[in-house]
Amino acid sequence: MRPEVNGERLLRRLSDFAEIGKTKAGGVNRQALSSEDRAARRLLADLVTARGFNVFQDAIANLFVRREGRDATRPAMLIGSHLDSQPTGGRFDGALGTLAAFEVLEALEDADHETASAIEVVAWTNEEGSRFAPGVMGSMAFVGAAHPDDFRSVVSGDGESFGQELAATLAALPEATMRPLGTPISAYLELHIEQGPSLEREGLAAGVVTAVQGTRWLAVTFSGSAGHAGTTSLAYRRDPMVAATSALNRLQMSIMPQDDDARLTVGRFSTHPGSINAIPDHVTFTVDIRHPDALSLAAIEARIRAVCEEAALSQRCSVEISTSFDMPPGSFSKVMTDRIETAARALALPYKHMISGAFHDALFVSRVAPTAMIFVPCRDGVSHNETEYVEPAHAINGARLLLAATLESVCSLLVIV
Amino acid sequence: MRPEVNGERLLRRLSDFAEIGKTKAGGVNRQALSSEDRAARRLLADLVTARGFNVFQDAIANLFVRREGRDATRPAMLIGSHLDSQPTGGRFDGALGTLAAFEVLEALEDADHETASAIEVVAWTNEEGSRFAPGVMGSMAFVGAAHPDDFRSVVSGDGESFGQELAATLAALPEATMRPLGTPISAYLELHIEQGPSLEREGLAAGVVTAVQGTRWLAVTFSGSAGHAGTTSLAYRRDPMVAATSALNRLQMSIMPQDDDARLTVGRFSTHPGSINAIPDHVTFTVDIRHPDALSLAAIEARIRAVCEEAALSQRCSVEISTSFDMPPGSFSKVMTDRIETAARALALPYKHMISGAFHDALFVSRVAPTAMIFVPCRDGVSHNETEYVEPAHAINGARLLLAATLESVCSLLVIV
Repeated sequence: MRPEVNGERLLRRLSDFAEIGKTKAGGVNRQALSSEDRAARRLLADLVTARGFNVFQDAIANLFVRREGRDATRPAMLIGSHLDSQPTGGRFDGALGTLAAFEVLEALEDADHETASAIEVVAWTNEEGSRFAPGVMGSMAFVGAAHPDDFRSVVSGDGESFGQELAATLAALPEATMRPLGTPISAYLELHIEQGPSLEREGLAAGVVTAVQGTRWLAVTFSGSAGHAGTTSLAYRRDPMVAATSALNRLQMSIMPQDDDARLTVGRFSTHPGSINAIPDHVTFTVDIRHPDALSLAAIEARIRAVCEEAALSQRCSVEISTSFDMPPGSFSKVMTDRIETAARALALPYKHMISGAFHDALFVSRVAPTAMIFVPCRDGVSHNETEYVEPAHAINGARLLLAATLESVCSLLVIV
Repeated sequence: MRPEVNGERLLRRLSDFAEIGKTKAGGVNRQALSSEDRAARRLLADLVTARGFNVFQDAIANLFVRREGRDATRPAMLIGSHLDSQPTGGRFDGALGTLAAFEVLEALEDADHETASAIEVVAWTNEEGSRFAPGVMGSMAFVGAAHPDDFRSVVSGDGESFGQELAATLAALPEATMRPLGTPISAYLELHIEQGPSLEREGLAAGVVTAVQGTRWLAVTFSGSAGHAGTTSLAYRRDPMVAATSALNRLQMSIMPQDDDARLTVGRFSTHPGSINAIPDHVTFTVDIRHPDALSLAAIEARIRAVCEEAALSQRCSVEISTSFDMPPGSFSKVMTDRIETAARALALPYKHMISGAFHDALFVSRVAPTAMIFVPCRDGVSHNETEYVEPAHAINGARLLLAATLESVCSLLVIV
């Protein structure tokens, strides 16, 4: 019997988990290590027990569900995502990838399908970083890029400490066997919603994610001279607003139009003193730049600095630019993306190669094992929003593709029953 | 004996008044109808009594100091400014014009100089508008553009009502005879600091102010579509930030460079939701436009609207523009500016014609009598600031020019004593 995704079951699981931390507007508030996060872990653990799988957790409360394979000495193949959400998050970001991975285990179990090695589902701790910064703590600790102790003193906006909430979360799942951080794996696959509109608009079922963009955040402050809006003529102005808009206009009209892979976003902008009838003395804004290529990312930053310096000079202003965040780009494994492609073709699902603009746990996991991601369309590209929505067919096809790619990745043994 | 300004006395008066509401940083906080404002009125009234002048006030607490002339039936010539300040205001804005006008009366008295008509010094109520909005209430009520009752219900940020504070201020000066609002005057002259840098930089002693610019405030909101900074490619962006900076850059590179009389200032700018890694859904900013010509002001607004519409369209965004304030320009009397010029030439003070970019009480007074203003340089053009500073020589020359222009304006009779 060939393992098949049970779409109805997957949708029911998505609904059941969406009840945990459900918000009035139809989203979820299930932030990392909160009571809602613990309730979601509890529900998963109960499902695991019912199916006879084994459950493990590590020192940062990454949760693992293991279905044994033929050879227990071989490293497990890992699939999954995360169960925590933004404070006004959607029902699919993270949950879809975790529950589709669990559906893979259930489908294999339903079909009595034996795999060469164990397959494990992971729910990474604190992907979002909204309650305890930074995000992707679980995968960072898993690959050794950080240690849980590094985060113990982090305090949330509601005054709770990461260390205490971590201990409480671990204690709430006594049936999960503790295991060391970074238990070896053979490969990692993560299914996730796109969080952008391209798959939906292009009518595709899936994105084969080949890389994750690098991200750099800049804080830019132009300084000039405050002055009366009415009495200060052009010759006497040192207006940082004029310098900033001229620099931004040049950058916006060149960087993205000249390079399809580049992203340039100005999300915050403020003026000081912020009076209608006063030329500001300072203007401050943020720049979020992304690129899949590290050299290009550095070149964009250099260009931003040069254009800002030039614009400041032209308005007799000064400019200061600092880098507040710098995450280098990462490439996924060609072996793994090939397996996803093979699976997509076999299922006749239309797909394209794409680059992830958002971070994911997979970016860290790719440091220790062959890794790739599958994206499915989400409505209007909206995520981190209570209105986030995934068509049932897209969710189910995503799980089917994950199952097929997982089977491509573990040496499978079809057992005739 | 020829009347002469006593420079030492003027500087002493400026120092004495700067003690009232003095701030740590060397400025003053003497907001309209506050106890500090009342203390300043008290000091002026005491000086008046000591010199044997008469003091009057009207229903909005405009304060008048009268030195009689030969013919009491002729309307008085009015000179003066205001005594109230911004919360972190300077020592000269308003006070210089009021105290220089009082010095004119003292100089005439010292010289036993009889004038054809009475000369009165005025201290207008609430020029600044910082405690009770709007500003220039006193001159508005004087010319009949508003009635004190219109403002009674205005409440300050500290919860005081304008009506109560007005009554308390009037009651605090029982020796001032009440007179009707709008008692006729023959002309009005106001000395004021420039509040801009041009006189200082051009090495001039005075500005002969021929007009006050019109002012219009616009609130502009570009709306697009929020999106993930990393996952949304250019083709899918509807970024209101890009639309706003492109519109502003076009406007900033054309309106002021093409027209020396135009002013364009963007003092406030904000984004929503204001997240570093999100394309904003809304971007809002203010535009302060000024021009001495009403048609040009309207043309600038029309151009701003057209450029914003075009920029919005190019980014698949929308834009809404509302006018939040509209003060038409006003011209001063050629007769009065000629008199100031004649006086400046006689005193060999270098001057230029100029247009005021700020409002002043004189703008309203010009509706009922021939009016003009004299500007003197202030350091670095700074005002509405505790560091506001006027060189003693500039203050004294301003008073000398005011005295001479006042004498040009009233038919003077030199009395040999």
